[in-house]
Amino acid sequence: MGGTLFGRDLVAIGDLGRKGIEDVLSNASEMQSVLEKGKRVDYLKNNIMATLFFEPSTRTRLSFESAMQRLGGGVIGFADANTTSTIKGETLADTVRIVESYSDILVLRHNWAGAAREAAKYAKVPVINAGDGAGEHPTQALLDLFTIKKEAGKLSKLKVVIAGDLKYGRTSHSFAEALSLFGNEFVFVAPEELQIPDSVYKSVVKNSGNAQKSESLSKAAADADVIYMTRVQKERLPKPEDYQKFEHAFRIDEKFLKSVREDVLLMHPLPRVSEISPEVDKLKNSVYFKQAGYGVPIRMAVLDMILNGDSRDS
Amino acid sequence: MGGTLFGRDLVAIGDLGRKGIEDVLSNASEMQSVLEKGKRVDYLKNNIMATLFFEPSTRTRLSFESAMQRLGGGVIGFADANTTSTIKGETLADTVRIVESYSDILVLRHNWAGAAREAAKYAKVPVINAGDGAGEHPTQALLDLFTIKKEAGKLSKLKVVIAGDLKYGRTSHSFAEALSLFGNEFVFVAPEELQIPDSVYKSVVKNSGNAQKSESLSKAAADADVIYMTRVQKERLPKPEDYQKFEHAFRIDEKFLKSVREDVLLMHPLPRVSEISPEVDKLKNSVYFKQAGYGVPIRMAVLDMILNGDSRDS
Amino acid sequence: MGGTLFGRDLVAIGDLGRKGIEDVLSNASEMQSVLEKGKRVDYLKNNIMATLFFEPSTRTRLSFESAMQRLGGGVIGFADANTTSTIKGETLADTVRIVESYSDILVLRHNWAGAAREAAKYAKVPVINAGDGAGEHPTQALLDLFTIKKEAGKLSKLKVVIAGDLKYGRTSHSFAEALSLFGNEFVFVAPEELQIPDSVYKSVVKNSGNAQKSESLSKAAADADVIYMTRVQKERLPKPEDYQKFEHAFRIDEKFLKSVREDVLLMHPLPRVSEISPEVDKLKNSVYFKQAGYGVPIRMAVLDMILNGDSRDS
Repeated sequence: MGGTLFGRDLVAIGDLGRKGIEDVLSNASEMQSVLEKGKRVDYLKNNIMATLFFEPSTRTRLSFESAMQRLGGGVIGFADANTTSTIKGETLADTVRIVESYSDILVLRHNWAGAAREAAKYAKVPVINAGDGAGEHPTQALLDLFTIKKEAGKLSKLKVVIAGDLKYGRTSHSFAEALSLFGNEFVFVAPEELQIPDSVYKSVVKNSGNAQKSESLSKAAADADVIYMTRVQKERLPKPEDYQKFEHAFRIDEKFLKSVREDVLLMHPLPRVSEISPEVDKLKNSVYFKQAGYGVPIRMAVLDMILNGDSRDS
Repeated sequence: MGGTLFGRDLVAIGDLGRKGIEDVLSNASEMQSVLEKGKRVDYLKNNIMATLFFEPSTRTRLSFESAMQRLGGGVIGFADANTTSTIKGETLADTVRIVESYSDILVLRHNWAGAAREAAKYAKVPVINAGDGAGEHPTQALLDLFTIKKEAGKLSKLKVVIAGDLKYGRTSHSFAEALSLFGNEFVFVAPEELQIPDSVYKSVVKNSGNAQKSESLSKAAADADVIYMTRVQKERLPKPEDYQKFEHAFRIDEKFLKSVREDVLLMHPLPRVSEISPEVDKLKNSVYFKQAGYGVPIRMAVLDMILNGDSRDS
Repeated sequence: MGGTLFGRDLVAIGDLGRKGIEDVLSNASEMQSVLEKGKRVDYLKNNIMATLFFEPSTRTRLSFESAMQRLGGGVIGFADANTTSTIKGETLADTVRIVESYSDILVLRHNWAGAAREAAKYAKVPVINAGDGAGEHPTQALLDLFTIKKEAGKLSKLKVVIAGDLKYGRTSHSFAEALSLFGNEFVFVAPEELQIPDSVYKSVVKNSGNAQKSESLSKAAADADVIYMTRVQKERLPKPEDYQKFEHAFRIDEKFLKSVREDVLLMHPLPRVSEISPEVDKLKNSVYFKQAGYGVPIRMAVLDMILNGDSRDS
């Protein structure tokens, strides 16, 4: 049981490092056994988690709340900032300093990149970043890596194509940064206006030594081990009229799949809109729903490691 | 303890049949004893229920959440689709396949008739229809029948008047279908434009052999054992300007009650607007608030039967 | 363990009296010990609390829900009336009579002063007023007094300045009424249009014999033991254009603090907007975040006293 996260914030995947990521994945495997035995455990029975969601979410909020309850903990929070004092003019710093006195850990989603770091600065309890604007989403990256480990059997020596809206899609940032620590080859596929930010690209190159950019999905994907598709973030585009232009830039359908390896792993952080055709869902290697499901053991692992560290009696 | 519902969906009351309905009502009586002893039990302590409410609800969502917690289970979900990925363009099929990996059972309310059936097609965990547009609302029908059994002492040989908006009011559909299995006489009272759909009417006639339509509440109600009033579904009327026309079509007040039997059972699925006057609330046979309360034991029974079947250790 | 609240409503602070308030504060101290031991207790494990919030709230709703869960109880409810049958035209009286059958206690916030009294009239289970328009907010007053007791070490013989929007700010009403029972000196500081309502002022004079009104914060605050600032209630001003006029009427910043006693206790019910400058937060006597945190032990005490009275096995 790694204690590396005990009492700490989880704001960016870079805070963890390779060893930290491996610890989380290993703990998540244990949590999966707990889930398979159909048991609710009481590891966090004395803890309350607050979910502060200033932006819409299904997956992240519900899987965090499921994870906390599977561990016996309580949950308070909001799914809509309009039901809170934010509309009376309250700052994030104030909201955080209040809600932390009602709970043992804060899980924050916000439209502003940097919000989680700011929250962590003010909070005395640990803060987990559950997505901050075009910034980071570390537990998503962790469940993405967990999916690859479980479904491909390894985390290294893979050719990984990351495609779609890489500029505004924060999941692609955290995912690429994390996976680059394990020695893989990357191709970032996007229209020029939506390419991966320079800072992320440089970091991936530095870590893995092996990354390229491309505008052609079919060329990049031909011999890929993993294709990680993302949605165009309509709500973050500076010019909403660009949406139609980008929406159909890449689309995975049955025809497309004939041009890639039969055992390629098809991932997506979801929600998808039209970038993966429904007929693709039934394929064995379309693992995006499984991927969403891995959110529960991953978030159980993170919550338990932060709140219990090595000290859990188990 | 009937195992007829174990692991199954509950999408329409017709899925249950008379025997299935009797099993639920009998289990609900046991759950009522649990509630009267003031105990929270742990029958579902290892289970999490997800409430996916795409439409407003007080009664149904809160009574399901109360029922699940009285049984020791956990709850996740949303009360407002605007806080979810639906606004990013996610389909119901995708939402269902994601949330099912966070929970053991889905409770769905949706504005689209057919939504629950669609959800059940995709979900690997059981789905309970908590109201789908102008379609069905089976747990409402079950609690309606439970009310009659408890308050009138029997479920058959009753003259039952169902009045109000029978076209868009889904509760009247499920209620009439269910009760017709037990041998009763029905009068459907509504303005022509809001009469009961043909499919429901035919099914009631086939089951009970005894049904009529009428536009006069006073005539139909004179010797009724049960009057089941419903609200005009303003939000579902094709022409909103019709609302005023229908709103005052039928209204039960003290004067009206002089023309009916003294022991008539007065029911309403609630919310009511103006169709039952507040002065009527204090009468012994105005059972609509009791009726709402029966939602808890009924939903406890349904959840326990679906998730535990005969295998609960009790 | 005082049983004075057992089975009763808590609608207005005046319902409690000095003895009742002292009982709650004493129980809250015990609850604080429970929290410090990091334990979740099971005092209310067989109870469900319903939070009916018709108006936005962070602090009050989340601290009630935290308190209930720390005591082992369950929670149902809504944070937004738009997700409920209110939008279908349901009255408060009907909502209350329905939800009470799903829960053991109701916690109500409403925009209408008098709503909690009305709800209590219809409900058979106890009702706690969690803020009713410009009316009362008794648990806020209790946590305010608890803050003074803990941080100033006593509840009497203090000079207390209450400043800001005293007309629409309900917290100042309940706070002044409660504290006046303990023998203190009061100065109400507000622009004339926002001064404390006559009824509250007269009640404070009657209780404490010692109260004044003023328009000058600096003069009143010079020798104060406690300064209780409040926010201008933008959402309740009859003329929204007055907001800017009042917004900057009083502002506490580092410069201002040079003119007051070094050990003055600086309180605020929060949320604040601009009436206390962020630079003031770091001062030892800025206790407003602590004050918010005291909401948990106070609400635990109130819930336990109402639901268990003397009968809890502990």
